[in-house]
Formats: sequence, C-alpha cells, structure tokens
Amino acid sequence: MSLPTQTTLENLVTLCKRRGIIFPSSDIYGGYAGFFDYGPLGVEIKNNVKQAWWRDFVHRREDIVGLDSSIIMHPRIWKASGHVDGFSDPMVDCKESKYRYRADQLFMAPVSLRHPETGEDLGVVAYACVLEDQLDTLPKRASAIKKALDKKSYKVDEALLAQTREYTEATEEERSLVWGPDATKGGTLTEPREFKLMFETHVGALRDESAVAYLRPETAQGIFANYKNVLDTSRVKVPFGIAQIGKAFRNEITPRNFVFRCREFEQMEIEYFIAPDADWKQLHREWIDYCINWYVSIGLPRDMIGEDVHPDEKLAHYAKACTDLTFLFPHGKQELEGIAVRGNFDLTQHQEHSKKNLEYFDEATKERYLPHVIEPSFGLDRAVLALLTAAYTVDEVPNDKGQPEERVLMRFHPRIAPYKVAIFPLVKNKPELVEKARGIYDQLLSRWNVFWDVAGAIGRRYRRQDEIGTPYCVTVDFDTIEKDNCVTVRDRDTTQQERVPVAELEAYLSAKLGF
Amino acid sequence: MSLPTQTTLENLVTLCKRRGIIFPSSDIYGGYAGFFDYGPLGVEIKNNVKQAWWRDFVHRREDIVGLDSSIIMHPRIWKASGHVDGFSDPMVDCKESKYRYRADQLFMAPVSLRHPETGEDLGVVAYACVLEDQLDTLPKRASAIKKALDKKSYKVDEALLAQTREYTEATEEERSLVWGPDATKGGTLTEPREFKLMFETHVGALRDESAVAYLRPETAQGIFANYKNVLDTSRVKVPFGIAQIGKAFRNEITPRNFVFRCREFEQMEIEYFIAPDADWKQLHREWIDYCINWYVSIGLPRDMIGEDVHPDEKLAHYAKACTDLTFLFPHGKQELEGIAVRGNFDLTQHQEHSKKNLEYFDEATKERYLPHVIEPSFGLDRAVLALLTAAYTVDEVPNDKGQPEERVLMRFHPRIAPYKVAIFPLVKNKPELVEKARGIYDQLLSRWNVFWDVAGAIGRRYRRQDEIGTPYCVTVDFDTIEKDNCVTVRDRDTTQQERVPVAELEAYLSAKLGF
Repeated sequence: MSLPTQTTLENLVTLCKRRGIIFPSSDIYGGYAGFFDYGPLGVEIKNNVKQAWWRDFVHRREDIVGLDSSIIMHPRIWKASGHVDGFSDPMVDCKESKYRYRADQLFMAPVSLRHPETGEDLGVVAYACVLEDQLDTLPKRASAIKKALDKKSYKVDEALLAQTREYTEATEEERSLVWGPDATKGGTLTEPREFKLMFETHVGALRDESAVAYLRPETAQGIFANYKNVLDTSRVKVPFGIAQIGKAFRNEITPRNFVFRCREFEQMEIEYFIAPDADWKQLHREWIDYCINWYVSIGLPRDMIGEDVHPDEKLAHYAKACTDLTFLFPHGKQELEGIAVRGNFDLTQHQEHSKKNLEYFDEATKERYLPHVIEPSFGLDRAVLALLTAAYTVDEVPNDKGQPEERVLMRFHPRIAPYKVAIFPLVKNKPELVEKARGIYDQLLSRWNVFWDVAGAIGRRYRRQDEIGTPYCVTVDFDTIEKDNCVTVRDRDTTQQERVPVAELEAYLSAKLGF
Repeated sequence: MSLPTQTTLENLVTLCKRRGIIFPSSDIYGGYAGFFDYGPLGVEIKNNVKQAWWRDFVHRREDIVGLDSSIIMHPRIWKASGHVDGFSDPMVDCKESKYRYRADQLFMAPVSLRHPETGEDLGVVAYACVLEDQLDTLPKRASAIKKALDKKSYKVDEALLAQTREYTEATEEERSLVWGPDATKGGTLTEPREFKLMFETHVGALRDESAVAYLRPETAQGIFANYKNVLDTSRVKVPFGIAQIGKAFRNEITPRNFVFRCREFEQMEIEYFIAPDADWKQLHREWIDYCINWYVSIGLPRDMIGEDVHPDEKLAHYAKACTDLTFLFPHGKQELEGIAVRGNFDLTQHQEHSKKNLEYFDEATKERYLPHVIEPSFGLDRAVLALLTAAYTVDEVPNDKGQPEERVLMRFHPRIAPYKVAIFPLVKNKPELVEKARGIYDQLLSRWNVFWDVAGAIGRRYRRQDEIGTPYCVTVDFDTIEKDNCVTVRDRDTTQQERVPVAELEAYLSAKLGF
C-alpha cells in the first residue's frame, strides 16, 4: 500500500505548527536541532497515547507492574550495561567543510575517465562520495569532479559509477582520492571514528572524572536496576514484566524526519522476564501480536504496520531474536517499535558489577536462575508521528452554500483525539440557548475533554474541529430550547448529522466513542 | 497542630521501600544522592496526582491550555532568563575535610574562654561553626574545641555562644578562627563562592563552549519560550494560562529530606498571563485559594497547609509578591508550592534576546502590551511526600481472634490511592467462587485500577491493602454463590463491613469513591 500523495512530512509539520500540536523547540530562538515541544493539542495526544498504553500494558495485565526511574542514574549502571564503552556511532569528519557524517551513511563510487576521441584511459582518478539518500546525484557529482580536475573533455565510465561501496570499506590509499559530499577536493574525509551518543554531565560539587554522569539513552536499564527491588516488594512471579514511560536522550549527529529521530525523546518500554527454558519463540510471537493489536486499537491501520525480522548475523551476541514493527511513515517504511529477545545479558552484567545476587527463586521448581527477557521498546514520539500520518486526510465536503470544498481532517481514534466532543451554541447572543449549551458542556466535561466554541458560522466551527480530529460536534439550536430538547450530533468522518434527545446524549456519545 | 509521633521521615522511607512506593535510585549500586525511583505503587500515586492536576487545572478550566516542552532547550533561553549568570548558590569548602556546605546554612558562635579559678580571660579563641539544623550541638562543639586547644581547665562563656551569626558575615580575620562542622582545627573554611546549580552538557558533535547546553532547572521558561506559538495557534485571550508538567534538574549540593529536595524532580507549573493593569492582588489571592482547595480535594488536611508571605525586601527586583504554601512535613513546616507575581520580566527578556515581538494585542482595548504573570509552581515530588505524610496512620484494630493489633494504614484520598478496590475470593480452591470473583474483577477493572488477591487469610489481605491505601476491599464468599449473590465490602478507614448485591456493586463503589 502507499500513502495518499498529500500525506507528506512537510504537510504534517505545517499542520502541527498551525494547530499547536508540535513546535520546533526554542522556536523564537530559531529552533534547536533534534528537540521539539508539544503544544496544547500535542500534549493531549501524547498523554492519550501514554494513558492508553499504561492502561493496556499495566493496569489490564496482572503480570506487569509499572516503574518510574530517574533519568540520571549511577554511572556504574552504564558501565555495566556496556553503554559507556560501546554506545557510539562511527563518524567521519570533513577537514575542509567541517561537516560531520555518520560513516554508515556515506557511499562512494569510482570516477573512471576515458577520452572519447583518443581513447586515452586515465583509470580511477577519484571516488565520488555522497550520503545514502543522495545516491541518484552520483552522475552529477562525478561530472563536477571531472570539471574540477580540469578533465572536461574526458568521459565518466557510468557503469563503474554504479559500483558503490560503503565509505567504511575504503583503504587509506582510496581515502586520499575520496571527494566528500561537501568538499571541493579529494582526501578531506577522515577515517571513521567512534562518537559517543550519551550526553554527559557532572553531578555534585566536583567537575572531574569521578563526577561524570549520563542522561539515560534508554529507559530499559532503569528497569534492570530496579528488578530486585520490584521482585522483593511486589509479589510478582516469573513470567512478569516491568513497564516504564519516560524521556531518554541521544546525541544524534543527524536528527531528522521531524519527531522520528530526536535527541530528546520519550520511550515506553517493558522488560518481560521469563524462565531460561521457556518457549521464547512462542512468547516472542505473542508479544509481537499483542503490540500490533494495541496499535490497531488506537487507530493505526493494520496494513500500514509491517514486521522486519533481524537476520541472525546482525543480532547482538547476547540476543536471540529481534523483530521491528515498521510503519509506513511519510519518509518510508521505518521502525516503530523493536521487540527483542535479549537473553539474560543485562541482569548478568548488573549482578557482576553490583555484587548483588539478582537470581530469581522459583518456588514451584526450587530452581534459582537469572531470568531472560523479551523487550518491547516503543518510541512515544514515533507512535505520535504514526498516528498523525494515519489520521491525516484531505477530502471534499459541501460548504454552507452546498459547493464542494476541500477540507483537512484528522481521523484520530476516539482514544487519541485531543477533544472527544465539541459543543456549539448556534448563536452567541441568545442567553437561554447559550445557557442550555453550557449545561451540556459541563455535564460532558465531567467525563471527557470537551471543547467549547461560540465563534463563527457552524460550518467554520466544524472545519476547525475536523482539523484537530474531534470525533463529534454537538449543536444546540433554537429547536432545542423551543421545541424538541434535542441536539444535532455531527460525525467528523461521515459529516452525517443526527438529532439526539439531550437526556440520551451522554449515553449516545459513550456508545459511539467506546468509553 | 502537630504530626502523630509515628509520622517520621524514617518511617515513611521504610514503608516506601518495603511496599515499592519509592526506592533510592540505583539502589543495588549503593544509591545515588539526590535521585529516586518510583516503584510500582509510587508511579501510580504520582500518575494520579498528575492526572488530577491536569484535569483540574487544564481540562476543567477554559482559560488554561497545556504544553510539554523539551528538557534541553536552546542555551540562549537560559541566558535571557538570567539563569546562566545568576542561578547559583554561595558555597563554602572545607580545605581539611573536603566537605562542601551551602553558605547560608552555616552558622557560627564565638567560643570565649575564662579560667574559673584564676579568672584569666582568654577572650574569643575560636568560632564554632555548625549547620543550621545542628545549632543545639554548639555547646558540645565548643567543648571539643576547648579540648583540642588544650584549654580543658577553662570555661566556655555560654551566653556568648548564643550569639550566632551567619558564616557569610565573617570577616577575613574571623574566618581564620572558624572551626568548620567537620574540621579538627580552625581556618579551614573558604570564603563563600558561587556554585552553579544548572547541570551542563554538550549537544552536537563538538565539545567546546558553542555546544554547551543545560538541563532545565525549571519548566517555567519552556512556557515563556512557547508563549507566542501558543498565542498564535490556540485562540487564547488574556487572562489565560499555560500549564506544564515535567522533569527539572538542579545540582543541589545538599539534597536531603527524602524526595523533598532532589537533584532530579518533577514540577507542575502554570504561567497565568494577565493585563499589566489587572488587579493582581485579587488574582493572586484567588490563585492561592484555588491551589489550597485543590490540595484539599486530593486529601491534604486544610490545617496542615499554611501560607508564608515573602517580605518585600526578599523579593526579586521584578517580582511584586510571592506567597509560599507550606505543609507540615515530618521535617518541619516547609514549602510545598510557590505562587509568585512576577511582572513581565521573563517575556521582556525573551523579547529582547530573541528579537521577536512578543506583545499581546488586546482586541477590546486596542492596546499592545507584554502581559504580566502569576506563577503557581508546584513540586510534584513534594506533593507526593505531603500525601504520604498526611495518609500515614497507625491505629489498632481487632485481629482474626478479636485481639487488638497495631496496623499501619495509608488514608489516601480515592483519587490518589494506587488501587481503588481489591477483590478477594474467600478461598482459592473453589473454582465456582474464584470464577465469580474474577467476573467482578473484570467488570470493575474496565473502570478503575483494581487489585486481585487470592493468597492468605482475609485479615492478612485486609492489612496488605490498608498499608497501600486501597479504600475498599470486596470479598466473594460461599454465601455469594450459594445464597444471596451479595459481596462483603469493607471500608479501609472504619473497617466496617457491608453486604452489597453484586448487581449494585459498581454503583455503590462509584458513589463511595466519588467517580
């Protein structure tokens, strides 16, 4: 399947800014790359996702309990987990342009020149190097290099140009011939170097090595660090899970695609502890299905969700399996959630480093062991972006004059919509009517988040609610107070209207919303 | 009023650890000063406070909208707000013990010696310096100094010892005679020096000055930085407020009193924008009352809440007034929330530094102005500590044999209690009975967070729920399935029991809980 042509990142970014869903962080100061602020509607969407998740993964499951650990934890935790030594990306600097690139995103192609008339073959005179998503610019780049080398009358071997390789594979000799994406000569790119992704700070009075601390790059380690305390206080029995929602931070070199890859982001993670001899393949499958069903329950179409199984050779040494759930984002089919089977690597490491016995005692089998884990790791901001993508719709409806008019609507699931209902008094200068509407507003507000709007023509008020995804609009008109004590309920998606008695309104909406 | 003698910080800390409410962060690594983790029950309490606050301050108020800005913002925001240059505490180091103290917490008293027999008067030979909360140890400290100076046969002038002064007032000459709290000689304390409270990190590829960024020390500036975007997208009109819940970080030198003063904490803040000529005194009063009523609505007794009005001379130059709401914590009457009238200092600063026009246009009066603000600033962790303090109760109830037995119970308001109801099948080996109970559990779970417990005598199950503050326990017994289709509902606080028909149970509990 493919997305409607209007569903572009650009359109989503524009809508988000216009309607107060997501702003670039520090916008009045020109923004701050990799950071975003959720506006009045965005924070409601985000809270709705969090609450739906907490309800379905914690409250409704007897085998999972919640946790909220600190963002800054003891630095030894990150030593034990391997993040201090291993959590980095290989980066390449350009000595000329001062730009920095992720090494695994740089690709190079040989520029081989031959004179079309004399037949003189210069062989490979350079390597054109571009970013992964700019591979189609290689011929142009090769041309520019040819020109810069003053070899205009020669011809580039196009076939050879198709033989791209990763820059990380370049030999020292080859590197001297590589023209970086923003360079005006060859040999300006360094060899790949490891760049740490954890943000560092200092805790306490001193600013030396002993005071270094990290902003957590994942919430998962907070779960492992608290596993023993939870075990000792919560009467949980394997298999059981610990769930946590919270911020995490990674100093990404190339944050991009709106809130898809940020430096500050929010995770919803579960560590699900299982016996070492449990049938992990079946449990893994159950988790994958449970997560997919959950996404569907909050409004993601099933056919936009895919599964990406990591091949064995790409797994970490301690991992048994990993499946990414993908989603059809405007920038492509990308990871929405990772669901890994991690063995007991983390608990083993923390047991060793903390010198505390973290073994579980199984009362039924009288065995002691370090449980293995299945780790469903959700990105909250990605979930929001997926929901925006799926909800964004442009269609045509008749305007007040009956002429077709384009409208933008967000088809949010009722659980996710910032407001569940909007209440409109037909006119604002008839106190009796406004009062009636106000009474209905107050009644519904005790149950849902409800929007009150008195300004403008009803058609315009509908459009405003369509664009922020309010499932139902309720209009109180003259008939309501003079004749039938009914209101008009209008459906966002179908634009159908129905007269509903005021006394039945709450039950009517509750049945429609599903809660 | 005063607290029951059992309500000590120590007892709360112990209960919190035992029942999985709050753990020291990184506990298996020996803890990490100033950081805490909320366990399975603590995270429920915290979420309940957040949701109650959001509901009462955002959803139920048409004049307030929500926001969720990033923790790391553009560093120019902290330059504009004055935090980069001014947000620091004067600290004093001890050159001998290497301890560091907050200067304003150090007090010194002259140690004057006189020989009781010869009448020889040595005058002031030293200054005994102790922390504010250890002033009662001064005589003992003076004695120790006398001994260390080999002047055992002399007598300390006790009257002079009562003349304590702040260490910050000491002259250079006096400082050479000051014995610090952990020193074995005089003159080891430095003069007070400013110590920055913001945590620093680096964002992006470089690690130089240009890349320095800060963890926000308050959520308020995120609101000011987004004020214009909210104004442009939300149709708000002065007076209106922007509310935000989120983490903040301060590198406190002396984190203490459990979660009262942490290095990582959570705030719930509102900036309420008003016209410059509004009656701010009345609005301030309204906010104070609104906040007090809110605390009462979640279970804090009115008589444990006080008001501490800042005297004019202690106000920041731009502030017009500030009133702290205090609470009677186990460690004393301390700030729970600050409610400040801040003028338009922050918007003025951001307008200047960002070069963006932040003026509000009042359509009614056709005036343009920078609104002033009233700033209610809640500490979420402090609110939790206050709720724990108020809820903690030790009383006596008859045990299964009718003998009086001490019990610990948490008298949480139903809005705050982690679980609203617990369901107990009387016995676990009668499938029919367990199934009946399970049906009730499933029904109530669709509405509230409900606990399921099949293990142990009913009396013990009651105790477990008392200690975590579950308001109602529902027992399904033989009569339920064989005779009357009623269950026993037991009230946490009174321990009274009532038979309620299963068909009426949900309505009965809803009336009792209030939602």
